[in-house]
Parts: sequence; structure tokens; C-alpha cells
Amino acid sequence: MKSKDELITSPRAQGQRAGLDLEQILEAARSFRPEDLSLSALALKLKVDRKALSYYVKDRKSLFQLLAIEAFNGHFSGLGVAEAVDWQSALKAYAETFVSGIISLGAFAEHIWFGDPLTMISLDPVEALFAKLKEAGFSDEDSVRLVTMLSTVCLGHARDILTYRNNKSQSRPIALRGALDKLAATQYENLHRIIELGVNTYSVEQLDFEMEIILNSASRLLAAK
Amino acid sequence: MKSKDELITSPRAQGQRAGLDLEQILEAARSFRPEDLSLSALALKLKVDRKALSYYVKDRKSLFQLLAIEAFNGHFSGLGVAEAVDWQSALKAYAETFVSGIISLGAFAEHIWFGDPLTMISLDPVEALFAKLKEAGFSDEDSVRLVTMLSTVCLGHARDILTYRNNKSQSRPIALRGALDKLAATQYENLHRIIELGVNTYSVEQLDFEMEIILNSASRLLAAK
Repeated sequence: MKSKDELITSPRAQGQRAGLDLEQILEAARSFRPEDLSLSALALKLKVDRKALSYYVKDRKSLFQLLAIEAFNGHFSGLGVAEAVDWQSALKAYAETFVSGIISLGAFAEHIWFGDPLTMISLDPVEALFAKLKEAGFSDEDSVRLVTMLSTVCLGHARDILTYRNNKSQSRPIALRGALDKLAATQYENLHRIIELGVNTYSVEQLDFEMEIILNSASRLLAAK
Repeated sequence: MKSKDELITSPRAQGQRAGLDLEQILEAARSFRPEDLSLSALALKLKVDRKALSYYVKDRKSLFQLLAIEAFNGHFSGLGVAEAVDWQSALKAYAETFVSGIISLGAFAEHIWFGDPLTMISLDPVEALFAKLKEAGFSDEDSVRLVTMLSTVCLGHARDILTYRNNKSQSRPIALRGALDKLAATQYENLHRIIELGVNTYSVEQLDFEMEIILNSASRLLAAK
């Protein structure tokens, strides 16, 4: 993902069109359903020329990225991480703020996954987390690798929560049951047993499990030093 | 992601248009660059009516998903998992085949992340993995949660490898350096130190690290029983 400055076509300091600024544009954009949002529809709503808009926003994709950055930054603050009493709580606080940040994007979250370095938009939580890990005695290399893994895990979990909300169902077990129903009942005995068990991997228990996996092994990394 | 049957508009057994079948369609589709691929362009190439195509493939999105399934299944076999000597090797074999499966999708991988239960397309590797985990003594709930976590980690790593190939650069450190360069050098001392260290989280060392985190904690889950 590009920085906010790169997404805006011209620096704001160079002069702004009378009666129109980026905040107004984003506010109006947020009132649209994502599927209805285009630069033309937005210009119509703001009662400005399409060209006046493109002075601020290059294209539809940039507009979606700007909306995603705004929404994410509103939720992703470094406060919880900086206030954590130890490195374990710091990692947990980072995960919580990261997941709630992605979830707040709703339909825009889809524009994030391949859009890239999301964590670099807000520097404060990442700086606070690296400070806590160094203080605890982690090597910088282990810290980078841990934070990378944690971000992947959080992004994946947020995706599952959003998918569950959209579909009102758990898509993995539904797909699995659909596949098994087409086959003889004697095949795939492990998958049959698993599907009957009905473990919900779309709820907070899954994130808690994944955090425990990371925290336990991270403790061992520290102890081995 | 829907099953292959759901993506095809009509069951093939009901009758096929003379001179056209799904394999032919997919083979022709694979010769396009993804950005140039549409049902109309495909119909033109196959010298058939657009309607004859829609007998097999509902829309462009379904076509992309079919291509992704075909490519993924070609790489995601259960062999390595079933032949593994212990549960650790089984998890590693699953990760390897999963990552190489996603990477083989190339530009189509983007259609996977929010497209859903990818792992359910090929049942064999998942069945083999659950069998190995049960044999080792894992509870079924722990197995489901472990395999879910592993799939997320593999998908995230495959995305990084593809991003690195596309951009010929590591986008996270580039974005971070860009952000830091705009700020006073005295701010964010931890991030400055981290960026100078230059750890590459886009290479196989990152997946190895993440596998070790998972395997170490999984051993403790077993030992605690």
C-alpha cells in the first residue's frame, strides 16, 4: 500500500479548490456503499466537476485505499502496546488493535491483503512493540520475524471474522461437508470425525489459540539465549 | 471458494456442445495474460459463440476460480504428507506443498485469499495430515486449530513470495524507509535500527522460523497431555 501522500495527486499545500478538501471528499465517499462508489458518482454527490475531484484523488483504486487507510488508522493506535506491562501483553495488545483495525474496514478489507505493507501506515504501534521486545531481550532479527508472523496471523483471522459476518456461516466446514457428501462414507474417516466435532475456527478462541502458540515458542526463544 | 461443480453452470453429463469441453476452455484460457482474459475474448479465440461458453462457465470470476483450482490441485497432493515419518514432517510436507501450490497460481493467487476454503478442494493432503496428528496423540480440536493456523501462515508466506517476484523488491522495508525518511532522525529509534539490520522476511528463512514457532508449541501441547 502506498503512503497517503502518494495517493493524493497534488500536495495540498500547493493550493486547494475553493469549497472542497480531502476530508469532505472522504466523508462523502463513506456515505456510499462500496459497490456504488465511483469518482463520477462522488463528483455528482459533491456537486463538483469530476476534474476538481481528480485534483485530490487519482482514481477509484486510490480512493478505496485512502478510505482504508483512514478507517484503519482510526483503530490502530500505539497506546495499548506502549502501556503493556510486559512483552506478552504488548504482543496481545498489538494483535487486538490490528484485528479490530482490519475488521473496521469491512468491505474495504479486501483491498488490503495484496495491497501491501499495512503495518507501516501507523508507525507508533510498531515502534512501541519493537521497543518492548528489545527490552525483554529478543534479538532484532527474532523480533522482525515474530512481528511479521503475528501480522499474517491477525490478517488471516480478521479475514475469517469478516467472511463469517458476510456469509452468516462458516465457509470451510460447509465446503468440506459438501465435498464429503459426494463420496462414499467409508472414505476420509478423519475428515468425517473432524466435521462432526464442529470446532469453530471463525471466533476469538482461534486467535487466542494462535497467540498462545506464538507466545509459548517466543518464551523458549528468550530462554535459549 | 466454491467447489468445481458449483462453478460450472451445467453438469457435463447433461450433454456437451459439439467440439467444446471444459478442458479445452481452460487450456485456451491459460494462454491469456490474466488482465486480457474475458469470456468474450475467450469465445473469440475458441471461435465459438459467447453463449456456448456460458454453458460451461458462468462468468469471468468463475473462470478465474476454475483456473486457480486447476493450477492448485496440480501441485497440492497428499503424497508427501502421507509418507512423512512423524507428525512434524507431516506438517512440514503439508506447508511445502501448500505454499508451492499457491505460488503456482501466480497472478491468480489474488483470487484465493478472500475466495475461501482452498484447503477443502484437495481432500487427500488434509485427511493424511489429520491422520498423522491423531496418531501422534493430538486432540481433534488442537489438530483443527493447528491446521487452520498453518494454512494462514502458508498463504501469507506465499503472498510475500509472489509480491517479491512481482515487484522485484521487499515492499515492507521500502515503505518503512519511505515513512521514516520524512521524519526527524531522532524519532522511532527502534524502527531505524530494525531497517538498518535488513532482515529479509520474503525468503524461505521466514517460513522456516514460523514453522519452528508452530512445531515447538505443538510439542508442548502434546507433552502437556
